Amino acid sequence: MKFVAANLALRLLGIVPFLALAAFASPSSAQTLLPLNLMPQPANIKQAPGALRIDANFTIALTGHTEPRLQRASERFLTQLHRQTALLFAKTSSDAAKATLVVHTDHASKEIQELGEDESYTLEVTPTGAKLNAANPLGVLRALQTFLQLVEVTPDGFAAPAIAIQDHPRFAWRGLMIDVSRHFIPLDVLKRNLDGMEAVKMNVFHWHLSENQGFRVESKKFPKLHELGSDGLYYTQEEIRDFIIYARDRGIRVVPEFDMPGHSTAWFVGYPELASGSGPYSVERKWGIFDPAMDPTSENTYKFLDELIAEMAKLFPDSYFHIGGDEVNGKEWDANKKIQDFKKSHNLKNNEDLQAYFSQRVQKLVTKHGKAVVGWDEVFIPGVPKDIVIQSWRGQQSLAAAGQQGYHGILSNGYYLDLGWSAARHYAVDPLSGPAAGLTDDQKKLILGGESCMWSEYVDPENIDSRIWPRNAAIAERFWSAQSVSDSSSMYLRMSVISEKLEWLGLTHRTYQRKMLQRIAGSASPEEFAALRNLADVVEPVKDYTREQTAPVEPTSQLPLNRLVDAVGLESDAGRHFSELVDKFLAASCRDTVTASELRTQLALWSQNDAALAPLALKSVLVQEAVLTSRDLSAVGTAGLRALDAIATGKPLASDQQSQLDSVLSETAKPKAQLVLIPAAAVKKLVDAASQPNACAPAKP
Amino acid sequence: MKFVAANLALRLLGIVPFLALAAFASPSSAQTLLPLNLMPQPANIKQAPGALRIDANFTIALTGHTEPRLQRASERFLTQLHRQTALLFAKTSSDAAKATLVVHTDHASKEIQELGEDESYTLEVTPTGAKLNAANPLGVLRALQTFLQLVEVTPDGFAAPAIAIQDHPRFAWRGLMIDVSRHFIPLDVLKRNLDGMEAVKMNVFHWHLSENQGFRVESKKFPKLHELGSDGLYYTQEEIRDFIIYARDRGIRVVPEFDMPGHSTAWFVGYPELASGSGPYSVERKWGIFDPAMDPTSENTYKFLDELIAEMAKLFPDSYFHIGGDEVNGKEWDANKKIQDFKKSHNLKNNEDLQAYFSQRVQKLVTKHGKAVVGWDEVFIPGVPKDIVIQSWRGQQSLAAAGQQGYHGILSNGYYLDLGWSAARHYAVDPLSGPAAGLTDDQKKLILGGESCMWSEYVDPENIDSRIWPRNAAIAERFWSAQSVSDSSSMYLRMSVISEKLEWLGLTHRTYQRKMLQRIAGSASPEEFAALRNLADVVEPVKDYTREQTAPVEPTSQLPLNRLVDAVGLESDAGRHFSELVDKFLAASCRDTVTASELRTQLALWSQNDAALAPLALKSVLVQEAVLTSRDLSAVGTAGLRALDAIATGKPLASDQQSQLDSVLSETAKPKAQLVLIPAAAVKKLVDAASQPNACAPAKP
Repeated sequence: MKFVAANLALRLLGIVPFLALAAFASPSSAQTLLPLNLMPQPANIKQAPGALRIDANFTIALTGHTEPRLQRASERFLTQLHRQTALLFAKTSSDAAKATLVVHTDHASKEIQELGEDESYTLEVTPTGAKLNAANPLGVLRALQTFLQLVEVTPDGFAAPAIAIQDHPRFAWRGLMIDVSRHFIPLDVLKRNLDGMEAVKMNVFHWHLSENQGFRVESKKFPKLHELGSDGLYYTQEEIRDFIIYARDRGIRVVPEFDMPGHSTAWFVGYPELASGSGPYSVERKWGIFDPAMDPTSENTYKFLDELIAEMAKLFPDSYFHIGGDEVNGKEWDANKKIQDFKKSHNLKNNEDLQAYFSQRVQKLVTKHGKAVVGWDEVFIPGVPKDIVIQSWRGQQSLAAAGQQGYHGILSNGYYLDLGWSAARHYAVDPLSGPAAGLTDDQKKLILGGESCMWSEYVDPENIDSRIWPRNAAIAERFWSAQSVSDSSSMYLRMSVISEKLEWLGLTHRTYQRKMLQRIAGSASPEEFAALRNLADVVEPVKDYTREQTAPVEPTSQLPLNRLVDAVGLESDAGRHFSELVDKFLAASCRDTVTASELRTQLALWSQNDAALAPLALKSVLVQEAVLTSRDLSAVGTAGLRALDAIATGKPLASDQQSQLDSVLSETAKPKAQLVLIPAAAVKKLVDAASQPNACAPAKP
Repeated sequence: MKFVAANLALRLLGIVPFLALAAFASPSSAQTLLPLNLMPQPANIKQAPGALRIDANFTIALTGHTEPRLQRASERFLTQLHRQTALLFAKTSSDAAKATLVVHTDHASKEIQELGEDESYTLEVTPTGAKLNAANPLGVLRALQTFLQLVEVTPDGFAAPAIAIQDHPRFAWRGLMIDVSRHFIPLDVLKRNLDGMEAVKMNVFHWHLSENQGFRVESKKFPKLHELGSDGLYYTQEEIRDFIIYARDRGIRVVPEFDMPGHSTAWFVGYPELASGSGPYSVERKWGIFDPAMDPTSENTYKFLDELIAEMAKLFPDSYFHIGGDEVNGKEWDANKKIQDFKKSHNLKNNEDLQAYFSQRVQKLVTKHGKAVVGWDEVFIPGVPKDIVIQSWRGQQSLAAAGQQGYHGILSNGYYLDLGWSAARHYAVDPLSGPAAGLTDDQKKLILGGESCMWSEYVDPENIDSRIWPRNAAIAERFWSAQSVSDSSSMYLRMSVISEKLEWLGLTHRTYQRKMLQRIAGSASPEEFAALRNLADVVEPVKDYTREQTAPVEPTSQLPLNRLVDAVGLESDAGRHFSELVDKFLAASCRDTVTASELRTQLALWSQNDAALAPLALKSVLVQEAVLTSRDLSAVGTAGLRALDAIATGKPLASDQQSQLDSVLSETAKPKAQLVLIPAAAVKKLVDAASQPNACAPAKP
């Protein structure tokens, strides 16, 4: 007994007596395989019985090609492994003969990371050690993340299951775009998001750096760009260089975007001569599409852009340069006689032609400075050079059209993180599905991948992580893994595990919420706070562009993001679980008493919740706003209980009862305070079932 | 209706239409006073009806004496106010005539902050503005924290209640000691703890920098101290200078401690000639009192200390210098013939005399380098100079003795954060209670205050905040507020509010736990994780020094702190609430059916908890360790339900039933896996009540 206890104690403290270690490998071989929680799913997996113990003696050795980046990667790997396990590893790197994990790298990767570089790797884990092989450091970076995801606590301590993995990405361009202009996002926040990208094997950070609301890069050539166009919120060139090194260390390219000729009001504050209107201009505070646009008819515009692109092309080493190009409404052009004259004299039929003229000029400048152009759909105009990459915000149709004409494309339509879609909905979008599915194999090769997009009207440093993660992990899997990896149940299970691990990196997508709710609740009692949390758990912000359309006052960059709609998650886990539970209950003809009891407990809690929350609404204006939603939740709970009662007794709801409940539910289904009450739809299913004579017969006694 | 909605929307977004603002002040005057959540409690408060709205137009102006530190303080104040409200304030400082908060500072404080400098302030808040007056910047720093604590969300937006405060500290020395030697604590963690100290008006950071387990300061004079004595984990002198500026900005003195002649093994790794034994020495990995001690008979020791103290006295500007002095077991002295001879030739009767000789020599060196000595009880020996400060770890008796003989003292006994006491227990300890209460008024003035102590055997950067906060806020109040401020219910209410606000500063004492539990749980199901959390909520680590005594294997600095005992809080809020609920129920002769129902819900949850947790114990070794405690919790739940049943039916438990339950409860009261199950004691009260015929008559029908 004493031995067993001490043995257990030793094991849980990460120390393995020799005998225990010997005993460890053999019983495992008879055990079932350990569960895997890998995301993105690797291309090929062969799992074997047994596992590699991870204890304080774990070491990693680098063989073959080495470079400081690999050394740093192995240190970060050990740091992360420490966070996951709390084990204290020796810092010294060990020799390959004795190391637990032996990394072999064939050769260097390109000094400036290129599109399409080899990221493949093999990883073999046995009960006695692990081997990682990759052609170049990029593959090593990817494999180390896979290894970290393999490590789990087990009955015998921390361990990685025995496994052989051969892996490579499906798409070469797997990006996340962050708009740092509408709300400025500091570098520490961006860096932790790079850490998250590395964890899920994304390899392009698309930095949306300029907008009507801000020009966020220091320009030494044109200092009034950042001095007058950023409210003092910009990145210095030194910070940017450091950030690019940070990204390269993680196998991530940094593609800068300077959006033009529209979305550029902030440029004009310092340089009004670039604009098509007469100004004066000030940094835009509102959201939307605005009139200001560069003057495409002025040679001074191109001279300016030539010099700016020269400066920025040097600052950002990536071989791609994003020139934006989206959403020009043409109003300033229409109002400017000189521009109208220019159109006529140059035989440009409309503003699209005028923008095409502008795009061609700018593309030449980008080419002149050694870069290839990326642009939104609008830059895809007849005759543009073939090295251009079209980023499609409009949809798969426009992406397919690019492919058909021999152009490279990446998909962002379907991956807009700010629209509040579920992970499953993003996950179901594939760059090669829909119209793109009809492309020839050669044309399909032109579809390079995709990018998720975090537009920042309604995010700030406090809640941005929660708007990106964990859903971005599902999108990352879409870009990395085979098209056939598409089961959303499996995705959700694995995503919830990865979500926890992402927080070890410093991402705050889970911890942010309590603080925001606490701000809303003030000095609430524990009961009141619990009620607020119960409500927050089952609501989501209104979807797509409804937030703008239903705003109580016109939203601007000056308004604080401190409302319940800013604090709640974009996808309600509790709402999804409840809905699954209802489906399970109905699928079993309402005969599953355990599920019935779970539903009843949940519905009872909701039905009583408003009573606990209502007093708080009298104390806090930020709760007051949600008072109708809170009442709705209790109404939904009560309606659900009535439906369950009817089902339990086997007496269908009378039609007046049914229509009364339907009317309650249809009221609760209407968003209020920009919040959607998720359980309303599932409860409607219960009421429907309770209204039919035979849909749900009572359980036999 | 539209107007009301828009008005509400404007208010919750932090914009006040003029009319609404006008309306705001007047109805408030008829309202009850807003609740205050100040900690520490100010000396004098006069609250008035009404409140000062805090919106995006809030500005602060500095008048009178100004200096960069005040400017930085006002910027930090706005940052913190932003975190609390999410409001976006203009960055420009405004002129006094228009500012919302006008700060007046009479004159500068000392360049090097001195013990006993004036920290008083007055703060007046009216519905139209606020005024802060202080003699010097220290009072301003204190007052700004009070103002931040006043700000709350209200039905009309964020606001600070109308109030007039005159405030000053009771004690001049209000410290927190952190031992960074047994576990190294990085500077970012220390800095956020300085932020926390500032929030609760503490003014001394006592930096325990050397120990058997590590010498944590770069010495340019004796580089082998940090090179060989720290495992590479030390602070550079540049970092220390930066840290001291950071502390000074917050009105906090930094007192360094170099513990000698014992607790100094780490010194001897590089400089074995300092020791009384023959070595060789290595950095100590275990906890406890060890034999190595400096050779007090060698002139070389004093030459070395002279040069080291010279270097460190320059690095640390505070006029106090802590020389430790605690816990020398004398074994190395006894074993060294030269030392024994020295004792005889110098007429030193015992090792206490020898240590006194050492202390006097070192004290002279400290004085020579312009500092006054602080030392633990052991340095208090007849004839030491009167400028010494005795830090009492032994208790109030020894503190009182110092006072009686005209020496300054500070109390730490009763404030050891690592012992796992409740906040209430620390709160009840007063530097001037017990033996010190008998001091004359003049003697009482010699008691300068106290220090809480965070010894670091069982803390690391991940959980240290949770071992310090929020309990340290209660101790801070003890040192700042009047002795009569001693109601622990009020303390707990206010501490829970402050605890939330402390997290805005970056402290992790609340957010740390989910991550640690997640590590323990691995990829648990949501139900399993909830069960683990339920268990974690009602257990505490074993108290005092029991952790060492009951360790399953000998603890060392190499063992990971990843067990449940490392993850659970030191004080179970849920346990305390349950106990209060039981007391309330019994006080009402068990007739309070609402309370009975709450108790029953809680007990039922516990009684079922083990069934949910047990499967997880099969999957994770870190849960497996807690399996007996989990069973105990369910047994406690079941026992409590049986007691409630007996009370409800009015039939007392039969004596065999009672003794069976008693035996269960006495088993559950025994700590297992170093965890104390808190609700066991309260359930015992229920069982006792259920066993007496008349203690709890059933409620009348």
